[in-house]
Amino acid sequence: MTTDSVTSITTGPIRGSHKHLHEVDGMSVPFRRVELSTGDHLDVYDTSGPYTADVPHTDLDAGLPAIRDTWEHPDPVDGASTQLAWARAGLVTPEMRYIATREGVDVELVRSEVARGRAVIPANHRHPESEPMIIGKAFAVKVNANIGNSAVTSSVAEEVEKMVWATRWGADTIMDLSTGDDIHLTREWIMRNSPVPVGTVPIYQALEKCKGDPTALTWEMYRDTVIEQAEQGVDYMTVHAGVLLRYVPLAAHRVTGIVSRGGSIMAAWCLAHHQESFLYTHFSELCEIFRRYDITFSLGDGLRPGSIADANDEAQFAELRTLGELTTIAKSHGVQVMIEGPGHIPMHKIVENVRLEEELCEEAPFYTLGPLATDIAPAYDHITSAIGAAMIAQAGTAMLCYVTPKEHLGLPDRDDVKVGVITYKIAAHAADLAKNHPRAQERDDALSRARFEFRWNDQFNLALDPDTAVAYHDQTLPAEPAKTAHFCSMCGPKFCSMRISADVRAFAEDNDLRTQADIDAMLAREMDRKSEEFVASGKNVYLPIEPVG
Amino acid sequence: MTTDSVTSITTGPIRGSHKHLHEVDGMSVPFRRVELSTGDHLDVYDTSGPYTADVPHTDLDAGLPAIRDTWEHPDPVDGASTQLAWARAGLVTPEMRYIATREGVDVELVRSEVARGRAVIPANHRHPESEPMIIGKAFAVKVNANIGNSAVTSSVAEEVEKMVWATRWGADTIMDLSTGDDIHLTREWIMRNSPVPVGTVPIYQALEKCKGDPTALTWEMYRDTVIEQAEQGVDYMTVHAGVLLRYVPLAAHRVTGIVSRGGSIMAAWCLAHHQESFLYTHFSELCEIFRRYDITFSLGDGLRPGSIADANDEAQFAELRTLGELTTIAKSHGVQVMIEGPGHIPMHKIVENVRLEEELCEEAPFYTLGPLATDIAPAYDHITSAIGAAMIAQAGTAMLCYVTPKEHLGLPDRDDVKVGVITYKIAAHAADLAKNHPRAQERDDALSRARFEFRWNDQFNLALDPDTAVAYHDQTLPAEPAKTAHFCSMCGPKFCSMRISADVRAFAEDNDLRTQADIDAMLAREMDRKSEEFVASGKNVYLPIEPVG
Repeated sequence: MTTDSVTSITTGPIRGSHKHLHEVDGMSVPFRRVELSTGDHLDVYDTSGPYTADVPHTDLDAGLPAIRDTWEHPDPVDGASTQLAWARAGLVTPEMRYIATREGVDVELVRSEVARGRAVIPANHRHPESEPMIIGKAFAVKVNANIGNSAVTSSVAEEVEKMVWATRWGADTIMDLSTGDDIHLTREWIMRNSPVPVGTVPIYQALEKCKGDPTALTWEMYRDTVIEQAEQGVDYMTVHAGVLLRYVPLAAHRVTGIVSRGGSIMAAWCLAHHQESFLYTHFSELCEIFRRYDITFSLGDGLRPGSIADANDEAQFAELRTLGELTTIAKSHGVQVMIEGPGHIPMHKIVENVRLEEELCEEAPFYTLGPLATDIAPAYDHITSAIGAAMIAQAGTAMLCYVTPKEHLGLPDRDDVKVGVITYKIAAHAADLAKNHPRAQERDDALSRARFEFRWNDQFNLALDPDTAVAYHDQTLPAEPAKTAHFCSMCGPKFCSMRISADVRAFAEDNDLRTQADIDAMLAREMDRKSEEFVASGKNVYLPIEPVG
Repeated sequence: MTTDSVTSITTGPIRGSHKHLHEVDGMSVPFRRVELSTGDHLDVYDTSGPYTADVPHTDLDAGLPAIRDTWEHPDPVDGASTQLAWARAGLVTPEMRYIATREGVDVELVRSEVARGRAVIPANHRHPESEPMIIGKAFAVKVNANIGNSAVTSSVAEEVEKMVWATRWGADTIMDLSTGDDIHLTREWIMRNSPVPVGTVPIYQALEKCKGDPTALTWEMYRDTVIEQAEQGVDYMTVHAGVLLRYVPLAAHRVTGIVSRGGSIMAAWCLAHHQESFLYTHFSELCEIFRRYDITFSLGDGLRPGSIADANDEAQFAELRTLGELTTIAKSHGVQVMIEGPGHIPMHKIVENVRLEEELCEEAPFYTLGPLATDIAPAYDHITSAIGAAMIAQAGTAMLCYVTPKEHLGLPDRDDVKVGVITYKIAAHAADLAKNHPRAQERDDALSRARFEFRWNDQFNLALDPDTAVAYHDQTLPAEPAKTAHFCSMCGPKFCSMRISADVRAFAEDNDLRTQADIDAMLAREMDRKSEEFVASGKNVYLPIEPVG
């Protein structure tokens, strides 16, 4: 590797916070600590790696420290050294302990969910730089960001910066979907410098090797590509092994046919050879490779719907049943599995996807792309899909693959990546709240308290994107004093509902009013006197409030 | 009025479409007609008024034509000339016929829903310029955009332009929430030039009249303000008559107290005077004024939650019960009613809001602000709230009040207004799909077909925001030929899943494959021969496809 092509990456703490490491069993578990003006602080989940340390990592040539290589792992179980094999044997790994601290849960929950196959820990032995994380419905909902160059645009340097940038804003995993030149080199740069698990779709690189002709693909070519990527440390791989020959014609009469690249490659291969997919017929051999590295299957939904019209159709659910069979096979090899899901689904058909996936695939973690809840808003598909993503995550989906504003239109640039990640952190967090995930609401409450008390900087710093929050505030009230002012530009200084609320609270506290009974009693007893007191004390309610500070 | 202060407004057709008028019973019902490259067209709902005509309206001094003054209305029923009174008497108004055409439904559905109070037609007799529309769960979900100057920023000219701009992108109603100087003048400009119903919160102007001192408010002052606005033609008014003295202390121990401006004004008044709210005690007099003009009540939720922590609490639902009582009173006067709703609600508590509102308020149309599904993303609250808005609309909410990216941070500018409106059109449309609203899916299907067939310009023109879709596309593939190219920047020209899908379709059609049984039969019968055919015919699948055009 040379750094020639990598220009610059974004480093340093996020506004108003710094990296705080919890030391646990010799491991340093990272959090983003937001220091509040009240003297309190809030620690939030942190995916950004050493790039946001006070003294950030910048040596891309050297790569990140291989932290996991220093940890003591259990011996193999029946020849398998996978998180699944260890969990089933009742063994707790360093990764599980790390994750328990990160998620704020008991380590036994981590182990048991992995053992049941309801959660996965994507952690290739050859990616020791990654900070362990878990994907499963009992844990915080995760977000994946896709990056990768293509034949039309983008360079290695841009993709590495996008990886750092995406994890800065909260991407829990990265998928490198490169399809153009320099696939191997791009991936090597990303692997050695990524603090989060990396996923790929090996068929893309295999297709490059046969110059874009899907019918020229062979099992051997594919297998060698998988091993090449496995050696580099790829943590999970999308495998479209459920696109069977007999399912392909089911997509023929759809409005949008087959929209998955991997799915259409395998469909073309199956039709051209009139044989069953080599991914399906060689699936057990694939399992043996995955088991050697502890790579996690992400069983691809090659027949996912690409439009509202095609949602929940026969092709989609036929493939899902096959993914269920493959899940059982993979797990019998001690290999971890998650299942990919749609796509484009109207709201009333979303829950059925989760129900069927859980029923057919032994509750393996569901990993969905959106889904988009309508097709009519290109340029806003981060939003059309955030609606579907929040709902499907509430129903039990464990990880959401982001969608950027450029979906269907072009490749995302740096700004699009950030908007995509933040939008999906919103969807994931909304689902965490709806699922009563422990501690999820802490951040909402801390931010809302700051808002109510006009602690503007605390409000900004607790936000998913402090920089944009500050910028928007400053467009209307740019002066620094305004950030400590007891008003905002919506009502202006003269009248403020938050201010009146504070007066109401003071009134209630002065009179010890906690329940409706207290209130009724007071109203009956001493209405007039209290009224006079309020008028006497309440003049500040409507007088101009001067900015402080 | 003088035009001195109004600089310019945005006029002319939206990209790729033109205004098409359906002539019905002497009325011209507007649609936006999108002409497709296939020779077909799609007519979609149009809120933009004469500003998007081929020869657009530009004379703001003259105002829009008073179309409704030329229509024949039924005689008053028991002294009431409201849409509700007429509907109950079995009479069909011109507004109802206009709406039936606009929505593509039977006029009897319109009449019966209004008669039941499950839908409202906000149409002050003194706002003859407005194009009638309906708000009710049996119809397309509507979107409101708030505009209005404040003490800190904005001018009359900006607000008129925002109104035209918001309706261009699909706002079904506008609320003028001005609080600073020139309230009367700003509103006059907006009323005379607005093609959509206009709502206000009269207490804001009343408060200006007593220099921002809520305790100095009187019923007479408020009443005179309502009459002033009624004469100008305001179509619906938010009245916070459910904030009762005994509910105010219930908000004292909330995380964010009272966040509604109207609610906090009335709370301050009640506490200062230790009397019941004059809006509540004089509610019947208010009904008589509303009935005279056919103004629709929008009963405000002054105690709505301002944070996830406060969602669905005692204060919120106590007020909702009172709004139910007031609904019954208003309807006994022949006055139309809708009910305002939250606010900030986590996803799992959303449906309960609709259920209770329908139970307590005789199924009056619900009109909600979002709700935001999390508090942690200031600068992205259009998205946090679009999630909640789509879900609450699916559950039966009839109109959504938009939220812009500036929510909690500042006043929206022109770009924010557009993003807010488009985001809420997405939420509304997603709900229409989920509710199986007739014709909603036509647009998704038309756009998806265009996408699948690489009719790029048709795809753009069918989008909610064609301009941004084109701009995003052109960032990666700016050349005009690329708009007719059979590929996109995601996969590049060499490989394309859509292209393979087209081949799959051709294969299925050649072999007459329609069901799984057809497929199985073919597979059993003639696998090899078909395979050869596909290879022979399918070479174009993977060869470079040149841009056409």
